[in-house]
Amino acid sequence: MMHVRRLTKSDGRKLVLYGRAPLPESIEAPSPAGETPRAWPELRWHPLRAEWVIVSAHRQGRTYHPDAAANPLAPTLDPRRPTELPQGPWDMAVFENRFPSLVAWDDPAAPLPQDGDAWPPRAPARGVCEVVVYAQEADTSLGALPLDRIELLFEVWADRTRELGERHFIEYVMPFENRGLEVGATLAHPHGQIYAYGFLPPVVAAELAQQALHLEVTGHGLIGKVMDNERADGRRMLFDDGTSVAFVPGFARYPYEVWIGPREPLRRADDVDAPTRASLARALKTVLLRYDGLWGRPFPYVMVLHQAPTDGRPHPEAHFHLEFYPPLRAPDRLKYVAGAELGAGTFTNDSLPETRAAELRAVAIEEPAR
Amino acid sequence: MMHVRRLTKSDGRKLVLYGRAPLPESIEAPSPAGETPRAWPELRWHPLRAEWVIVSAHRQGRTYHPDAAANPLAPTLDPRRPTELPQGPWDMAVFENRFPSLVAWDDPAAPLPQDGDAWPPRAPARGVCEVVVYAQEADTSLGALPLDRIELLFEVWADRTRELGERHFIEYVMPFENRGLEVGATLAHPHGQIYAYGFLPPVVAAELAQQALHLEVTGHGLIGKVMDNERADGRRMLFDDGTSVAFVPGFARYPYEVWIGPREPLRRADDVDAPTRASLARALKTVLLRYDGLWGRPFPYVMVLHQAPTDGRPHPEAHFHLEFYPPLRAPDRLKYVAGAELGAGTFTNDSLPETRAAELRAVAIEEPAR
Repeated sequence: MMHVRRLTKSDGRKLVLYGRAPLPESIEAPSPAGETPRAWPELRWHPLRAEWVIVSAHRQGRTYHPDAAANPLAPTLDPRRPTELPQGPWDMAVFENRFPSLVAWDDPAAPLPQDGDAWPPRAPARGVCEVVVYAQEADTSLGALPLDRIELLFEVWADRTRELGERHFIEYVMPFENRGLEVGATLAHPHGQIYAYGFLPPVVAAELAQQALHLEVTGHGLIGKVMDNERADGRRMLFDDGTSVAFVPGFARYPYEVWIGPREPLRRADDVDAPTRASLARALKTVLLRYDGLWGRPFPYVMVLHQAPTDGRPHPEAHFHLEFYPPLRAPDRLKYVAGAELGAGTFTNDSLPETRAAELRAVAIEEPAR
Repeated sequence: MMHVRRLTKSDGRKLVLYGRAPLPESIEAPSPAGETPRAWPELRWHPLRAEWVIVSAHRQGRTYHPDAAANPLAPTLDPRRPTELPQGPWDMAVFENRFPSLVAWDDPAAPLPQDGDAWPPRAPARGVCEVVVYAQEADTSLGALPLDRIELLFEVWADRTRELGERHFIEYVMPFENRGLEVGATLAHPHGQIYAYGFLPPVVAAELAQQALHLEVTGHGLIGKVMDNERADGRRMLFDDGTSVAFVPGFARYPYEVWIGPREPLRRADDVDAPTRASLARALKTVLLRYDGLWGRPFPYVMVLHQAPTDGRPHPEAHFHLEFYPPLRAPDRLKYVAGAELGAGTFTNDSLPETRAAELRAVAIEEPAR
């Protein structure tokens, strides 16, 4: 059972509280800023890459490693110094980013789109950017949460995918998390983000095209084939309870890359039922505990959720799953994304995925329990 | 006039010395290792991205921030402690990387390619990885070199493109430089690299496809159109002598992204004549001096050279140019490539390209002189 309260901050931004316990009617939405700066990020067309670049000049002033007393993701203790979140029995919370790269662009004050003849071609950067706060405590982490709280996160992702996806201008909802200084997290409080895009992002479009091609040619889903092949090989599996799997893919671009998903080709986060959610939570917690246990330190990563677009088409080729891209190749060594990766698109994995999977499998963890 | 000496190290790796002065016959090629570890990097197919991942497990042991006495890119002073390079009047040097991601795979000892039924699909990672040493001195930089030495680098790139491109298994030659700790450079001695690929890398293939489409539809090159539009706009130009241009593109993905190229659609580095080379050297030095002058510190960047493939086809759509991707958005703040970039392929530029270009234009530099 999930309780939900949908609120609006004084500056117009939305706040949604989620909890296992009932949420009192009296809760109000605080905001650390009297007024949020209005900004109109734009898209500019990159003609060689044939993709949009988001230009969002107002983000330079965003919050950057505040001290604990100024943590905007902690509940408000002193009403004279409001944070982004109220006190109360909520377990997770989602609010609109104060410094969004994408905006709804539905304000009457919004400027008219630029002339189509301008160089470079431009368009409004339509979308919604949200922050997903995983817990009230600043010193915990996603992997440290009990299983029913991790299940709640899958419910939150489902709710956000549904609610954001229903807006007419949203084509794709992507939850993700940048964890650790190494990938640029500017707040230590455990949280993720959601970018809801007004256009289909290029990596997503390219992957869906391959999935659609595979479905058309073989009659089966491509992610399901990857999962079947990894299960048959077995050397890179990290979790498999028959319902969900977690594995280092044999074609991993990052040394400790991991994919997690349901075996059934559920298209979106809001297609997941309760038993599958329970299984996925165990898979996710298992991977996160192995990550943090590997070197006895919080393990930095980029986590992204890939799913079907919300563009109104059926997308039978889609298969909802999580991908982790950890930036480290050793406890003190980054795998840099530099000339070969950025300039040519070629990733070099300096290790065998089989070896890295064996390292993660060897990490002793307690069986994830409630 | 460029003098060239082509040598072979005792471990079989090639070394090429380049200089403005004659290079004595007596120069021999040292090697810091009695034996270079044989390795057989492989390609593994990423079915969702439809691209090859290079898996090269032996690279974990590569040189990592050695102290000055162990700098492998300095000339050998003590024959009992050989570096990668000899003493002598050379100005620039190129040698095969000891820890390559790509190898010629023409050794009789090479293993047979894997079974095509294996999961994931595999292939030999064919290619050549070279190191390009810009100077004998460890404490200089590309931008600090005199103009005729920067011209020499364009000649070196031309020589490498020609020689590597003539090998039957090389489809694409990409010179690049990762400068600074922020992009993972592990040696401070000024140097770049060359990856000569046995396949067309995905970013290059995607950009060439857009260029070919534009040429077919309009009869003109796409890079030339970008240059013409940037010249007509003017606000983002950093250099323009009629022959070569340097500018922050209006669609920049990185705050201080810069492109440099000849206006004439020369396809490859080895199509450049002497007057154009002189112009390009002035453009490149101008940009590098502005970068280092901006904050009074060595400015980190990824620099890549894009040009026509060496696959035997004419590629009239190609137009040789340099692209710079600097990782900083402020003197102490990185622009991280994280969730949105890696997971969705969407880049957010937190500043207006016009503003960044104006900052670079305002840096006072002496007119680049010989």
